[in-house]
Amino acid sequence: MADTELQHVSRLRDLDDDALNQVLELSGRLKGRHSRGDLVGRTVGLLFFRGSLRTRASFETAVHQLGGHALNLTAMSDFWELEENEGVVMDGRAPEHIKDAATVLSRYCHALAIRPALGGSHWDSDRNDRHIKGWTRHASVPVINMESALWHPLQALADLLTLREHLGRLKKKRVAIVWVHSPTPASPAVVHSLLHAVLRSGMNVSLSHPSGYELDDEVMDEAHALSKEYGSEIDLGTPPEKAVRDAHVVYARSWQSIESYGNPTLQASQRSKHTNWRIDEKLLASSPDARLMHAMPVRRNVEITDSVLDGPRSLLYEQAANRLWSQMALLIHLLR
Amino acid sequence: MADTELQHVSRLRDLDDDALNQVLELSGRLKGRHSRGDLVGRTVGLLFFRGSLRTRASFETAVHQLGGHALNLTAMSDFWELEENEGVVMDGRAPEHIKDAATVLSRYCHALAIRPALGGSHWDSDRNDRHIKGWTRHASVPVINMESALWHPLQALADLLTLREHLGRLKKKRVAIVWVHSPTPASPAVVHSLLHAVLRSGMNVSLSHPSGYELDDEVMDEAHALSKEYGSEIDLGTPPEKAVRDAHVVYARSWQSIESYGNPTLQASQRSKHTNWRIDEKLLASSPDARLMHAMPVRRNVEITDSVLDGPRSLLYEQAANRLWSQMALLIHLLR
Amino acid sequence: MADTELQHVSRLRDLDDDALNQVLELSGRLKGRHSRGDLVGRTVGLLFFRGSLRTRASFETAVHQLGGHALNLTAMSDFWELEENEGVVMDGRAPEHIKDAATVLSRYCHALAIRPALGGSHWDSDRNDRHIKGWTRHASVPVINMESALWHPLQALADLLTLREHLGRLKKKRVAIVWVHSPTPASPAVVHSLLHAVLRSGMNVSLSHPSGYELDDEVMDEAHALSKEYGSEIDLGTPPEKAVRDAHVVYARSWQSIESYGNPTLQASQRSKHTNWRIDEKLLASSPDARLMHAMPVRRNVEITDSVLDGPRSLLYEQAANRLWSQMALLIHLLR
Repeated sequence: MADTELQHVSRLRDLDDDALNQVLELSGRLKGRHSRGDLVGRTVGLLFFRGSLRTRASFETAVHQLGGHALNLTAMSDFWELEENEGVVMDGRAPEHIKDAATVLSRYCHALAIRPALGGSHWDSDRNDRHIKGWTRHASVPVINMESALWHPLQALADLLTLREHLGRLKKKRVAIVWVHSPTPASPAVVHSLLHAVLRSGMNVSLSHPSGYELDDEVMDEAHALSKEYGSEIDLGTPPEKAVRDAHVVYARSWQSIESYGNPTLQASQRSKHTNWRIDEKLLASSPDARLMHAMPVRRNVEITDSVLDGPRSLLYEQAANRLWSQMALLIHLLR
Repeated sequence: MADTELQHVSRLRDLDDDALNQVLELSGRLKGRHSRGDLVGRTVGLLFFRGSLRTRASFETAVHQLGGHALNLTAMSDFWELEENEGVVMDGRAPEHIKDAATVLSRYCHALAIRPALGGSHWDSDRNDRHIKGWTRHASVPVINMESALWHPLQALADLLTLREHLGRLKKKRVAIVWVHSPTPASPAVVHSLLHAVLRSGMNVSLSHPSGYELDDEVMDEAHALSKEYGSEIDLGTPPEKAVRDAHVVYARSWQSIESYGNPTLQASQRSKHTNWRIDEKLLASSPDARLMHAMPVRRNVEITDSVLDGPRSLLYEQAANRLWSQMALLIHLLR
Repeated sequence: MADTELQHVSRLRDLDDDALNQVLELSGRLKGRHSRGDLVGRTVGLLFFRGSLRTRASFETAVHQLGGHALNLTAMSDFWELEENEGVVMDGRAPEHIKDAATVLSRYCHALAIRPALGGSHWDSDRNDRHIKGWTRHASVPVINMESALWHPLQALADLLTLREHLGRLKKKRVAIVWVHSPTPASPAVVHSLLHAVLRSGMNVSLSHPSGYELDDEVMDEAHALSKEYGSEIDLGTPPEKAVRDAHVVYARSWQSIESYGNPTLQASQRSKHTNWRIDEKLLASSPDARLMHAMPVRRNVEITDSVLDGPRSLLYEQAANRLWSQMALLIHLLR
């Protein structure tokens, strides 16, 4: 069931500036309207190799609100061990090759959305997003990344929509991306996708985190290239107090250290030095108009205090709601 | 996606007499008709923190038969540990607050139906239905209780529909609620909701159970108040032989003792004295016209003998089928 | 919700030649067309007591592409232990009788598709397909077997469609069914259904397997009777080199030995002598036009080499795709 022009979205840059703009504009037009029939007769396979609340709820709902069918394959059993290497003699545990699973599901589905499992041991290995690449290589329908180790394009899309709605024109506006403490930090995927997304929008970025929490090297190289190309500025290593000053938006996120990736003991000891990295009213006092964003789930009073979260700065629920509309727009873009 | 008038159904009394009557009449009109489009473009989130067969099958089918989308969130993994206390520093196991989960899901769904987990240790705690209350407090769309420790309004709705269909006018008719033995008794939720439902319908009730199986005190206080308000009679502590005599309907149910709630050893020893509490032809001989109801699943020849279950008295399958029609009517009532 | 003429499909022979022909012709007409509304307002319950990828994905998609609702009951928890014996005192683990589950689900669903669990210990017991028979006995809507120990009618349907598409008229064409080695062989269900299906189509069959891998006795008795009735030939015990010579289609499949069924140690030791039973270019050299079929999942370079699988002989993906179309046709046939 391949469309004539096949396009995968493993990362936000798979959408060029025109396509990105169209998707965001369509998201806005879709908001609050229902029962569009754009996906009638279409099936979108959702493969979760890792659990999810917001992504599954918003993606499945997006498909159905467009009249389509979300085939929900919770792919977390043994059954789902897929061989990813080519040319292997498959006498081990995996009963099926990713090539065959992807080819067959492409015959039943009009698009495949994948949330891969993370190895969690070696960043050098996880950063390759081999699982997503296996699906994009073998599927004959569009593959959408629902958050890999390296990228989370769907979150970045919702983030951009939220930023546009609240700031209007983004060029030269400033976003402070601030690391916060959490006992269960995520991969840097959300911040990687966000960083590139805002730089492509011409926004200036202050990136603030403790030493040892630097983002992926290649992602940063690309970020510097984008900053040049789009005339946006990146400001690194700024302390949070300075980063939030005059920021239009503060984006809070907890992510694991790439240095100690795969070493939980070291991660915990490293984190324990930074438990004061938290967004509260005091930190934001210098920036009375700054809005607050966070991709959720959020640990209240650890990452962000209740008073900030429940106060007028918070855009968290708008952001989460925008997952629905931006994913509807992306599906229409890919499948129309 | 909140409707203008927000109404939750944590218990049957959340529907006043007029609303209850309308829902039951609509249930009857819906029966056997299909493909109504009342829920086209609407998504109903189903959150199962505990497993279910009849409820999930009938509820999901109800949504789809009305043209809507049932977003099925099997919420039984670690991921779903939700913090329910306000103002807490969330540095423990729960990665998300119920406030945030409820608010976000209210942006994707037009209603949320919840089957909460039961603590199972302390009745004083479980009887508070804190989990359901957390969802109703924070959701901005209607929340429907799919069986908590204290109430099962959806079963009571189907029960009332079945009673009306088979007895016509309910006023002054008599139902005998009879405890039966089972190695796996449920919470008293079904009986609590049923008791109030039939009293509100003006039915007289004989409640028959071994000593030690008294219902929740506050539920009984309310029952007595309802009995006064609706002119219906409650007859307590009647032996089963007497309770079923001249009853129009015998409603069998096994429930745990509240006295020994959370103490499996004590529960088992207590139950072992009452293994003869079973519905059979002999017990029902004095009441040749009495029909039999039971909310299922039923342990054959332990709770009720095959000959009664498979004989002409049994309304069990009608009751189960009525879950579908009454839930369709309730969804239309809440979401139209 | 029973239709006037109730028909179950526990095995392919439940469809007579006319019905089979109609279903296959309809499958062809459906191909590539979407959004048929034949199942609007209908719910098909899918009960998986054992996991599945292709069957679940293709069946659920078939239902939805026809406008219906697939109620997906993953039935692998304790909750789903069903009593199958009649007249039992149900004081053991099973909380519900299959009679009651089947009767109630027949009130919610317009058809039930069942993938039963396999005992895996005794062939004499598993071959009775008691679980499927329990559902067909008690359901009042059509029951469809999604692969039991003995039969896999849905795979055979897709296989026949694929054979017709590639060979045209099947009469007197020849299929070689060749056992192949796998560390995780399946039950003989696929081959049982295939064998009968091709014999009924008038095809000649060479069946090639190591000694000890004979098919079920009664299935073979029926096969010989079909061979007489339809004028088709069965050729047994042929070595693979001879079986594939001049075959129009080679059908590869790994199945367990019935002799050592339920004895994993013996099975493994028996298999270890036949690791050279593999489909490769050399084996197929004598049959330059033969096409290759396999029901998947396939262990690459163990059952079949990459070069054959990825070469022009392979019909595997067509076969898998045909699951969708033939199941759509079967659903229309059963539910119209």
